[in-house]
Amino acid sequence: MAEKKLVEAITAMEDDFAQWYTDVVKKAELLDYSSVKGCMVIRPAGYAIWELIQSQMDERFKATGVKNVYLPLFIPESLLNKEKDHVEGFAPEVAWVTHGGLQPLQERLCVRPTSETLFCDYYKNTVQSYRDLPQICNQWCSVVRWEKETRPFLRSREFLWQEGHTAHATAEEAEERTLQMLNVYADFCEQVLAIPVIKGRKTDKEKFAGAESTYTIEALMHDGKALQSGTSHNFGDGFARAFDIQYTDNNNKLQYVHQTSWGSTTRLIGAVIMVHGDNSGLCLPPKIAPTQVMVIPIQQKKEGVLAKAEELCNRLKSVCRADIDITDKSPGWKFSEQEMRGIPLRVEIGPKDIEAGKCVICRRDTREKTEVSLEELENKVKELLDKMQVEMLERAREHREKHTFVATDMVEFRRLFNEETGFVKAMWCGDQACEDAIKEELAVTSRCMPFEQEQISDVCVCCGKPAKKMVYWGKAY
Amino acid sequence: MAEKKLVEAITAMEDDFAQWYTDVVKKAELLDYSSVKGCMVIRPAGYAIWELIQSQMDERFKATGVKNVYLPLFIPESLLNKEKDHVEGFAPEVAWVTHGGLQPLQERLCVRPTSETLFCDYYKNTVQSYRDLPQICNQWCSVVRWEKETRPFLRSREFLWQEGHTAHATAEEAEERTLQMLNVYADFCEQVLAIPVIKGRKTDKEKFAGAESTYTIEALMHDGKALQSGTSHNFGDGFARAFDIQYTDNNNKLQYVHQTSWGSTTRLIGAVIMVHGDNSGLCLPPKIAPTQVMVIPIQQKKEGVLAKAEELCNRLKSVCRADIDITDKSPGWKFSEQEMRGIPLRVEIGPKDIEAGKCVICRRDTREKTEVSLEELENKVKELLDKMQVEMLERAREHREKHTFVATDMVEFRRLFNEETGFVKAMWCGDQACEDAIKEELAVTSRCMPFEQEQISDVCVCCGKPAKKMVYWGKAY
Repeated sequence: MAEKKLVEAITAMEDDFAQWYTDVVKKAELLDYSSVKGCMVIRPAGYAIWELIQSQMDERFKATGVKNVYLPLFIPESLLNKEKDHVEGFAPEVAWVTHGGLQPLQERLCVRPTSETLFCDYYKNTVQSYRDLPQICNQWCSVVRWEKETRPFLRSREFLWQEGHTAHATAEEAEERTLQMLNVYADFCEQVLAIPVIKGRKTDKEKFAGAESTYTIEALMHDGKALQSGTSHNFGDGFARAFDIQYTDNNNKLQYVHQTSWGSTTRLIGAVIMVHGDNSGLCLPPKIAPTQVMVIPIQQKKEGVLAKAEELCNRLKSVCRADIDITDKSPGWKFSEQEMRGIPLRVEIGPKDIEAGKCVICRRDTREKTEVSLEELENKVKELLDKMQVEMLERAREHREKHTFVATDMVEFRRLFNEETGFVKAMWCGDQACEDAIKEELAVTSRCMPFEQEQISDVCVCCGKPAKKMVYWGKAY
Repeated sequence: MAEKKLVEAITAMEDDFAQWYTDVVKKAELLDYSSVKGCMVIRPAGYAIWELIQSQMDERFKATGVKNVYLPLFIPESLLNKEKDHVEGFAPEVAWVTHGGLQPLQERLCVRPTSETLFCDYYKNTVQSYRDLPQICNQWCSVVRWEKETRPFLRSREFLWQEGHTAHATAEEAEERTLQMLNVYADFCEQVLAIPVIKGRKTDKEKFAGAESTYTIEALMHDGKALQSGTSHNFGDGFARAFDIQYTDNNNKLQYVHQTSWGSTTRLIGAVIMVHGDNSGLCLPPKIAPTQVMVIPIQQKKEGVLAKAEELCNRLKSVCRADIDITDKSPGWKFSEQEMRGIPLRVEIGPKDIEAGKCVICRRDTREKTEVSLEELENKVKELLDKMQVEMLERAREHREKHTFVATDMVEFRRLFNEETGFVKAMWCGDQACEDAIKEELAVTSRCMPFEQEQISDVCVCCGKPAKKMVYWGKAY
C-alpha cells in the first residue's frame, strides 16, 4: 500500500536510533544538506518551528527586561585574544576571514563563535556610570564553529541561536540574572516544548571557556542519551577586567561590572524530535506546531465533502493553526504525511460523518480517536490541543524517571552504563581526576550537579573518598 | 538650560545634513560604531524599530504565500562562480574565509553577499516535478559586502536584510511574482513607514548582476537625495541554466525554472530618519515606533501626580505601546529626550491638569498640543496616532512633489541639479552612452523608468535623438 511506503522510508528507532533521527529530519522536510560541508538548509517546515520557538522564548525574555540588539558577525583577532581562557576554548574551532574584496586584511577576523568579546567591547563604550546599569541585551543570530563531525540540528558548523549578554553593578545581581535565565529556559522547555529538564551546575571541567560558573538544563532523549538544552554563565568580573569595563558607582568610585551570558540554539528542535518522535515520524507539541490541525476529507469527490471540510478548516482557523489537505492523494497517504510531519491533530470528515453531523479527531501522539459533533468542533480541538501539550510532558517525564538510575559503586555504575540507557545519579568527591577516569573508561560525562541534591551515599562513586556533590552522569549528544 | 543642550548636540540639518544624520543616529541611540571597521552595533532603540519592520513586512509576505527558511552563511567559491554576470558583480566586494579552525580550507568560502547561488543549489535538489513549483522562500539574515565607504544604516560592511528567492514553472508567473513583491514593498513603505515611493524599472546599467530585469522603489530624502528602498529582480531562466535547475512538466518534458529575488534592508531605518526627522531628532511613524506614547508627569513630587501618571500609562498600554518617564530629570529635559527618540506622542500630566480632569497630548511631528479630558484619553490617543501616521505620509508626498522637476534639455537639466535638490524627470533615448555622460558630468544616476510614464517631450534630454522612456534622475545615497 502506498501509505506504507512513506512510513517504511524511515528506519525503526529500535533498529538504529541515529538513522531513525536522520530519516525523520529528511522525511518531515525539516532540513537538507547543503553544498557547504557541515552547514545545513533549514527548510520551511523546520524554520516554521524555529519561528514559534523564537517568538515564544523572546516574549519570555522581554517580560524579564531583555532588549534585543545586533552586533557584528566578525571579531578582530586581537579582540578575541583578550580573555585568555575564552580564546583557548574557541580559537581552535573558528573560521577566519583573511581577505575583504580583493585585498588581504591587515588583521584577520574570525566569524563569531559566540559574542562575549564583542559585547564587552560594546559595554566598554556604553557603560560609564551606575545609571547605565544593568545592561540586559540579547541577539538572535547565527554562529560558526568549525566542527569536524556534524549532525542535523545537533551539531553543525553554522547554527542559529540566541545569545544574551548582561552587565551588572554587583556580583549578586549577576548571579541572580544567571539563575533567572536558566529558569526561563527550564520553564520554556517544559511548558512549550513539553520536555522535562534537570537544572544544575556544570563541573569546572565542563563549564564555558571564561566563565566562573555555568548552569545548564539537561534533557533525556528517547534513546537514553543526554542533551544539554540551554546554558547560563556567570562571568564574575573576569571579562570586565580583561576588557577594562568600569563604571562610576554612586560613591564616585570606579568598579568593574559583573557579567553573564546565556544561550539556546536550534538543537532544541533536535531535542523535540528525539523526545517526542516515534516510528511514524515527528510528533510536535501543539505550542510549536506550525500546523496544529490537518483537516482530511474522506471520499472528497463525493458531493458536499470538500465544501464541508473547507468550512471546518475555516472555522478552526479562528482558534488554532489549521490547514486542509485537498490533494488527490489517498486518505491513508494523507494520514501518513500528517503523522510524518508531526501535526498534533487530524480531523477526518467523510459523507457518513456529514450525514451524522459529526467528525473524527485523531491525536498524533496516542492515535486516540474521538467522535465529535460538528457543533463542538472548535471547543473539542482546543481541549485536545491543551490536553496533548500537558500529556506529552507527562509522558516524557515518566520516560525520564524510568531511565534514571542510582549507583553507589563503580561495579553498579559500569553495569548501568553497559546494560541500561539513561541518567545515572552518583556521588562525587569534586576531584577532576575521577571525572576524567569515568569519561575515559565509559565515555560518559558529568551532565550537571543538580540543584536538587540527594545524599545517595557518603563517598565518591569512583575513588571512595568523601563525597561533595551528587552528579547526573550520562552519554551526551 | 539643560534641555537645550540635548538639542544643541545635534547639528542643524540646514547646516550639514550628513552630520545631522549621524548626530541623530547617535543621540537617539539607534546605532554605535564597533571595533570592526565598517560594521555597526544596532542598539536596543534601533533594533526595536527593525523588529517592528520585520514583523509587519513578514506578515505581508506570508499573506502572499512566502515561507521562511535559513540557508548557509558561506558560499564555496566554485558555486559563486557559476553565473558569470553575478560573480563579476559581487566577487570584488566579498569577504573570504580561508581557514577553518587551525587548517587552511581546500576551497575558500565567501561570506554571502546575497544568496542567489545558494538558493539555486537548494532548488536544484528540491525541485523535480511541476508539483514542486512554485518555491516561494525568504530568509531574514545578514549579508556582507566589503564597502570602502560606510554610513550608518545606509551602507555598511555587514547589514541586516531579507532576501526572497522564488522558482516558477513559467516566465509569466516569475514576472508576476517580481511585480507582486515590488508592490508589497511599495505598499509597506507608504502604509507603515509613511514614505511615498516611485515604482519603476532600473535601466540595464543599474540592474542587479545576473538579472534580466530589476524593479525598484525610489524614495526622496529630506535633503533631496534619492534612496533605493527595495528591489525585485526577474532572472528569467539564466540562473536555472547556469545551475541546471530543471523540472518535469505535466507533459513529462524537462523545463528550466524561472526565478526571482527581492530584498529590503536596514537602510529602511535610514530612510525613515531622513524623510521624517527634524532638528529636534528622530520622528517615527506610529506603526514602527517601539514606544508610541510617553507619559511625562509635571511636578511629579506633588502628591498624586505620579500615581495618576502611572494610571494613565497603564490605561494606554491596553491600546498602544506606552511608557512613562519617572526619572528625576526636569520635564523640559524629558520632552527633549522624547522628541530626540522620535516618540510620536507625549502625554503631559500635572497637578492642575489632574484638578481639571484633563491632560495635554503633544504630537511629535507638528508639536500640536491638544487638551483632552481624562475619560477620552485612550480614544484620543488612538485617533491621534492614526492621524499622525496618515499625515506624515501626506507631508512626505508634498515634499517629494515640491522637489520633483522636469527638464526637456540639458541646460535646464544642469540648472536643476546645480540649483535645486530632488528628482528630475526627463526623457531618454535608451542608450547607455547618455546615461554614462550624465553620470560623468553631474554625478546623478537614473533612478528608474517609472511605471507611470509621461510624454514630457519626444527627444532624449541628453542627445536629442528620439526618446523611448521617461526616467527619474537623482543624486543617490
